[in-house]
Amino acid sequence: MSHLEGRSDGSLIIIGGAEDRTDTCLILREFVRRAGGIKAHIVVIPAATSYQQEAGDDYTRLFKSFGAETVQAILTKEREDADKYEALEAIAQATGIFFTGGDQARVIQLIKGTLLDDAIHKRHRDGAVVAGTSAGAAIMPDVMIVEGESDTHPRLDAVEMGSGMGFLNGILVDQHFAQRGRLGRLLAALLIEPSVLGLGIDENTAVIVEGDELEVIGAGAVTVVDESNTTFNNMDRLLRDEPLAVFGVSLHILPHGYRFNLSSRQPTAKGDKLPAQGLPLQS
Amino acid sequence: MSHLEGRSDGSLIIIGGAEDRTDTCLILREFVRRAGGIKAHIVVIPAATSYQQEAGDDYTRLFKSFGAETVQAILTKEREDADKYEALEAIAQATGIFFTGGDQARVIQLIKGTLLDDAIHKRHRDGAVVAGTSAGAAIMPDVMIVEGESDTHPRLDAVEMGSGMGFLNGILVDQHFAQRGRLGRLLAALLIEPSVLGLGIDENTAVIVEGDELEVIGAGAVTVVDESNTTFNNMDRLLRDEPLAVFGVSLHILPHGYRFNLSSRQPTAKGDKLPAQGLPLQS
Repeated sequence: MSHLEGRSDGSLIIIGGAEDRTDTCLILREFVRRAGGIKAHIVVIPAATSYQQEAGDDYTRLFKSFGAETVQAILTKEREDADKYEALEAIAQATGIFFTGGDQARVIQLIKGTLLDDAIHKRHRDGAVVAGTSAGAAIMPDVMIVEGESDTHPRLDAVEMGSGMGFLNGILVDQHFAQRGRLGRLLAALLIEPSVLGLGIDENTAVIVEGDELEVIGAGAVTVVDESNTTFNNMDRLLRDEPLAVFGVSLHILPHGYRFNLSSRQPTAKGDKLPAQGLPLQS
Repeated sequence: MSHLEGRSDGSLIIIGGAEDRTDTCLILREFVRRAGGIKAHIVVIPAATSYQQEAGDDYTRLFKSFGAETVQAILTKEREDADKYEALEAIAQATGIFFTGGDQARVIQLIKGTLLDDAIHKRHRDGAVVAGTSAGAAIMPDVMIVEGESDTHPRLDAVEMGSGMGFLNGILVDQHFAQRGRLGRLLAALLIEPSVLGLGIDENTAVIVEGDELEVIGAGAVTVVDESNTTFNNMDRLLRDEPLAVFGVSLHILPHGYRFNLSSRQPTAKGDKLPAQGLPLQS
């Protein structure tokens, strides 16, 4: 299946933005824990933001406060910075790599296709945890919403698509999902990219992906939007500013502890041993 | 089926709020046309708003500008006003009755159970068009969202339910749907009222209901949310501030000209003679 192409071996933590950084820090602690806990070597990549120093410092301070063994931020003011030896050396040692929020297009402009990009993918295949929040979440698949309009009905011109970083293909991520009313733009994006599965991730909420299994953690929910069994859409007759039509989209709302299998496309209730429809769990 | 109980004979126009009142006025013209055009006798009911005089005047001026034969507003400052002879007399002659926006709870407080309520229902059964926008749309079914939170994941405490005016049972209306990011609260409301069908109506968009058939008009879309085939929800284990889970919600996005059959629960594409899944059209 197409979503398995290019699937990496390391686990991914995809965060819908505005994750708790002052209270229980559930999601960020889970990232450091999975990266090795007090033995973790964390690299922060704040390429998405134009305040790289500040964002790098903030997350560095936080991850150090959890006790990670080393934490450093790689600043990429220009694309050339992403080919430098120091950056590649840091990634080669990393057990956890964290992409901050900002503008997802900046990550692509500054990093995609560089030696740093290659090094992160290699390290991820070797088992390092890769995490990203907000813009850093949007970039995870090979296709992404570059920018778009919130709180709108689905329209082609509500969303601009582009290439992502390709850590997990076959999905499409939209972040700040409930908080910004992004159902319309995610539906539009999925009609433009019909073979993929949509994950609308709320703020302070994340999915942890290991192999084909996805688990939700955090305060909100993940809205899984599956258009694979739709019976009709009007894409063949549509001009860009006209409203989209689609029949039979399947939606799953998954809060903390709930799981979803990307291969069978089946959700699993919290604590259940079997998926809702009784299929054997693929682990 | 439960949604047919109490079904009235007249047609209904349910408007998602913020309908165009200055440009083409597509939806409001359609209301007056269906009420008899230049022979229409329109009654405006601004009970939802605390600015009844102003709202009544605005719609009266507009409907008169379309050439309706008579237009008058019935003001109900107190519940007793809804039992007065003048109000009942106006309704007895009306071919079109229009509920303005405001606060849906006010319509229930001021009108439900009064002689005016009875008179409107009788006139509707006799064929008068009943229309409502925003709060005036929310009140159409027998259950409604009294108030709720927008731009949130589904939670029980994101929505407060109450009785509506009962013109069309078996559905639940949410208005300003895409514009206010109301998927979460509509999903929560539908888990509280599991036998009904959800209609999320965008601004400047309406559904026209005649018998079992619903047609969409306007600039946005109607999101039909059907939970009848869901495979799981966590309602039995949920506290009020915890996130809801639900698997297998079916969603249809229907723009202008698209239809939906409330009995078969099947959408129909614009201009198609048959519903999408090839079932015979129930007219």
